Amino acid sequence: MTQRAAVIMAAGQGTRMKSPLPKVLHRVGGRAMLDLAIDAAQAAGCSRVVVVCGTHSPAVAEHVRKRLGDSAVAIQDPPLGTAHAVLAAREALADFEGDVLVSNADCPLLGPDDIVSLFEAGADLTVLGFEATEPGLYGRLIRDSTGRLDRIVEARDATDEEKAERVCYAGIMAAPATKLFPWLAQVGNANSKGEYYLTEVVAVANRAGANVAVRIADETAVMPADNQTDLAAAEAVFQQDRRAALMAQGVSMVAPQTVFLSWDTQVAGGAVLEPNIVFGPGVTVEGGATIRAFTHLEGCVVRAGAIVGPYARLRPGADIGEEAHIGNFVEVKKVKVGKGAKANHLAYLGDGSIGAKANIGAGTIFCNYDGFDKFETHVGEGAFVGSNSSLVAPVTVGAGAYTGSGSVITKDVAPDALALERGVQTEKPGWAARFRAMKLARKGAK
Amino acid sequence: MTQRAAVIMAAGQGTRMKSPLPKVLHRVGGRAMLDLAIDAAQAAGCSRVVVVCGTHSPAVAEHVRKRLGDSAVAIQDPPLGTAHAVLAAREALADFEGDVLVSNADCPLLGPDDIVSLFEAGADLTVLGFEATEPGLYGRLIRDSTGRLDRIVEARDATDEEKAERVCYAGIMAAPATKLFPWLAQVGNANSKGEYYLTEVVAVANRAGANVAVRIADETAVMPADNQTDLAAAEAVFQQDRRAALMAQGVSMVAPQTVFLSWDTQVAGGAVLEPNIVFGPGVTVEGGATIRAFTHLEGCVVRAGAIVGPYARLRPGADIGEEAHIGNFVEVKKVKVGKGAKANHLAYLGDGSIGAKANIGAGTIFCNYDGFDKFETHVGEGAFVGSNSSLVAPVTVGAGAYTGSGSVITKDVAPDALALERGVQTEKPGWAARFRAMKLARKGAK
Amino acid sequence: MTQRAAVIMAAGQGTRMKSPLPKVLHRVGGRAMLDLAIDAAQAAGCSRVVVVCGTHSPAVAEHVRKRLGDSAVAIQDPPLGTAHAVLAAREALADFEGDVLVSNADCPLLGPDDIVSLFEAGADLTVLGFEATEPGLYGRLIRDSTGRLDRIVEARDATDEEKAERVCYAGIMAAPATKLFPWLAQVGNANSKGEYYLTEVVAVANRAGANVAVRIADETAVMPADNQTDLAAAEAVFQQDRRAALMAQGVSMVAPQTVFLSWDTQVAGGAVLEPNIVFGPGVTVEGGATIRAFTHLEGCVVRAGAIVGPYARLRPGADIGEEAHIGNFVEVKKVKVGKGAKANHLAYLGDGSIGAKANIGAGTIFCNYDGFDKFETHVGEGAFVGSNSSLVAPVTVGAGAYTGSGSVITKDVAPDALALERGVQTEKPGWAARFRAMKLARKGAK
Repeated sequence: MTQRAAVIMAAGQGTRMKSPLPKVLHRVGGRAMLDLAIDAAQAAGCSRVVVVCGTHSPAVAEHVRKRLGDSAVAIQDPPLGTAHAVLAAREALADFEGDVLVSNADCPLLGPDDIVSLFEAGADLTVLGFEATEPGLYGRLIRDSTGRLDRIVEARDATDEEKAERVCYAGIMAAPATKLFPWLAQVGNANSKGEYYLTEVVAVANRAGANVAVRIADETAVMPADNQTDLAAAEAVFQQDRRAALMAQGVSMVAPQTVFLSWDTQVAGGAVLEPNIVFGPGVTVEGGATIRAFTHLEGCVVRAGAIVGPYARLRPGADIGEEAHIGNFVEVKKVKVGKGAKANHLAYLGDGSIGAKANIGAGTIFCNYDGFDKFETHVGEGAFVGSNSSLVAPVTVGAGAYTGSGSVITKDVAPDALALERGVQTEKPGWAARFRAMKLARKGAK
Repeated sequence: MTQRAAVIMAAGQGTRMKSPLPKVLHRVGGRAMLDLAIDAAQAAGCSRVVVVCGTHSPAVAEHVRKRLGDSAVAIQDPPLGTAHAVLAAREALADFEGDVLVSNADCPLLGPDDIVSLFEAGADLTVLGFEATEPGLYGRLIRDSTGRLDRIVEARDATDEEKAERVCYAGIMAAPATKLFPWLAQVGNANSKGEYYLTEVVAVANRAGANVAVRIADETAVMPADNQTDLAAAEAVFQQDRRAALMAQGVSMVAPQTVFLSWDTQVAGGAVLEPNIVFGPGVTVEGGATIRAFTHLEGCVVRAGAIVGPYARLRPGADIGEEAHIGNFVEVKKVKVGKGAKANHLAYLGDGSIGAKANIGAGTIFCNYDGFDKFETHVGEGAFVGSNSSLVAPVTVGAGAYTGSGSVITKDVAPDALALERGVQTEKPGWAARFRAMKLARKGAK
Repeated sequence: MTQRAAVIMAAGQGTRMKSPLPKVLHRVGGRAMLDLAIDAAQAAGCSRVVVVCGTHSPAVAEHVRKRLGDSAVAIQDPPLGTAHAVLAAREALADFEGDVLVSNADCPLLGPDDIVSLFEAGADLTVLGFEATEPGLYGRLIRDSTGRLDRIVEARDATDEEKAERVCYAGIMAAPATKLFPWLAQVGNANSKGEYYLTEVVAVANRAGANVAVRIADETAVMPADNQTDLAAAEAVFQQDRRAALMAQGVSMVAPQTVFLSWDTQVAGGAVLEPNIVFGPGVTVEGGATIRAFTHLEGCVVRAGAIVGPYARLRPGADIGEEAHIGNFVEVKKVKVGKGAKANHLAYLGDGSIGAKANIGAGTIFCNYDGFDKFETHVGEGAFVGSNSSLVAPVTVGAGAYTGSGSVITKDVAPDALALERGVQTEKPGWAARFRAMKLARKGAK
């Protein structure tokens, strides 16, 4: 197969986002749009990806460097238009002779299939178009009778006939590197803004007698997210697609529109998702598990038959075993919870492990932090941690052991023992009556 | 009135659900579709109900037995088509001479009115139709000029004229037992799949010179739920209808689309429901009560003037008295909460009672479980349970008594007394400064 | 500028709400519709506002008195129609010679711009109309060829030609006081109900040779909320508008439809709002703050860089400092939280302050209430409050101090000290094994 590479344009200022966060680092499905663009290119077979960054947002280049290394960053400085932006990647791809995709980092729903369709068109240059519901200000793709792309016409320059064309320009194309870059170098800037436009490469290619093809994507696939409203709209499409995919594989959802998924959320068929669930990145839910309402999950695994929520919060490293129960107002972080174990009410379980069939009482806290370091708590199989216990890590409660309600456990508890930390209950008869009388008298005196 | 019975078909494999749970046990409005089908038949006056089950899902037959007894189960084995399925119920209804409804267990929105319309049509056989928005692949009901049902035509066999008919077959019908079963016995299986189709009974009846009528239901009423997507769609319709009904009777909802109701949810006019509320089965909310955001209710009563939530979880047996307050991150199970009592923050209140005007401090836990048995906690009228108390059941805090913050109360507290379980606060001057210095030194050393 | 006043009609019974709460006190965006009507009139320059109340709902008049004083209340008794209602305000405006707006207290989306358009029309009488999607039963505004309002025709009296008119009557108008009240006095009640209708004032004005103008508002702006369904619909429009406004100014929202705003919610551009957030009144969120899922805010400030939630509840007086973290199942009320301080898990923090960089352990409770009075807790800069601590107010934990897990702190803790209240951990070897054996034996015996 011909080698494939991608040039992803991420140099725009993104001022319409009105946010300190650079536009292309805004997220859809919990993942930066820039990463989604790289993901799509890689999934379409691009072995090399170059991201064109501006000088105004060092965080973008930094983000690329971290993921793909230095060689993946091309800097456009100063910004002189989209054709100029792509040319900024020429050097980074100087040794590359395969096909090059040009795409945008703010196009979060573009999938690999649409990219592949460009690579496989077999033309000298292939431009991605979409049938616009409201073509409005989009550039129109004007094809000749054989289907070849004759020209891209800006809406403001279009004749009525041209305006009637509903297939519009998506800003995405592909061509062999050996043609693309020389053509780009011929694009001029004789226009009102003095910019080098990527659309012009079509005219250049046609003048060179090239075969310029068009491939069509769904309008949603090429939705750009330029401002917060469009970003939310893209997110909505992403969510709808992902929810539909989960239902199609057998996941039950009482109210799909209230379940928010991440780009990498895995839920197996036969799992049940109640209303109002938020999935952060990195979650796997096995079939037969039930996630109850108002649950928040992130970086965790929920195994078959487990019941989580309502109001559970699973944080990274939570591994909820088969048939285990994690109940309301319980937070679990970096804890492996054994098969059939239960922590049903108001608990903080951070760093450690809970054995199979263990029972964690309401109000239990794993005291894992001393202000500087974190320590682990281990609760053995079948142990019973009494309500309102504080387990001060590092500490181990042995298998089958009990701890008394309200105890602060600072030393390990032997298997099958009972550990208790508690004072003596004393009573002051009539105290409450006197206290009340005093308080009421004072209130009356005011 | 002529006796009425129902044959409910529940023998389908339901493989399109892609779930280990049998299709007809999937829920809408918190109730198994099979039960909703039985409910509708019973509400339409069916004194006997027979459910036709397959051999592949013993859980379905078991479910029916538990609700209606052995005689309500008919087994279809092997599955040879829908007409064959209904015939499987013949023996169970051998002594029955009234009218028989044939309906489906995966048709969760069918209401009693539509069923009654079939019984009251006064025909020999009455078939339920619906006007399809997109008739597509549905069978068409072809009536003659007098309105009698001439035939049911499969979409693939339909002429263009027949295809233009928008009234389609819903798979539901009614006829006297004395006619229905003999006709069914005459249905043949001379078709490509070799199955006995229920639709054929219309041809048989017409050949017998019977009067075959049609009654029309709303399309939503006959929506089948064959897969997870359709199930979610049926749920959405159910919810929308129920919310509208509550608003019509005077319930205020800030965001109706975020309130999820069960089939038996009762909320009286004058109650206020904030956004994001989930009602499990068995909930009654009286007028003048306010359910605040993010609340989850199940099997409980909330009385007039009570305020529940945000983030309250009421579980079965919670009975929240007039003007009582149950606040954030508070779970109540099997506890009767007296008039004007308050438990506003972070508490687990399980098994027992709380007297009128009592105040339950933040972080209070009713320690009701010893790993084997559950015990009760009773807090008297006007008592004040200090924050972070652990009340170890069985235990009683007398009327007007106080318990000190952080106490573990294991013995009954006399009325108007103060009970305290607490050590002495000690202080190690400068300890924290030394600890910090040591920790920082170590970190520096690394 | 000519002085402006408003007469707001709030005398209707509102029985269609089916609620003990008077109709006009039902809320949209967390604010009583009556107050929204007053807000809009004031924002449009009305220096005086008179609200016409009925005798059936004293709470309405009381509400007005509390906000605007006695002189703002006019009583209509008995109710004899809308024209009669406006006349009830004549005395209260006897000394007023400017322009008078007549509007309705159940029209929660009417904005100041539409009101201003009436005042600025320069006519003798200006009536607000709207282009109805479904004109149905609305009165039609019939204008002559010059655009002057000729008459208002009730739907039932309208000719086909008149019915084709889609501009309808919104029940809102403006005129100079010196003309309005005399005209109203001429309105008769010779109709089937014997009522004095406000619409008649148009005929009276026209007979007097006045210039009667029409101004057009959006249909949503004049949506009345007469019943719970319409109230919810108005709320939905309000929310949609406010969310769009926030996104336009740079607020990121993953799922805008799940964020519920109040009339006065302030969120700066660059803030991030995750799904499922409820804003009560009085909230300000600064740019760069993140509000995570399932958070409930009311009467609070969240400063730049702070992270709140998931599942945080901020109540009135919570002031969350820059870069502070308030985490899951944490309630904060009347507490100033310093820069970079953290309270990440299961805590009740009521009344007091938390210094910069302090760390509040999981399960911490500020015990602020003794059943009669509230007291304050102050945690110094850089202090570390151990998990499951009960801080019994009034109490101060000095800067840099530590408190041991599970301690009940009743006395002030010196800066940099460690305070501890804890018993000795004891262990009963084998107790749990014996207990379990005993329990199992008993269960077996049953």
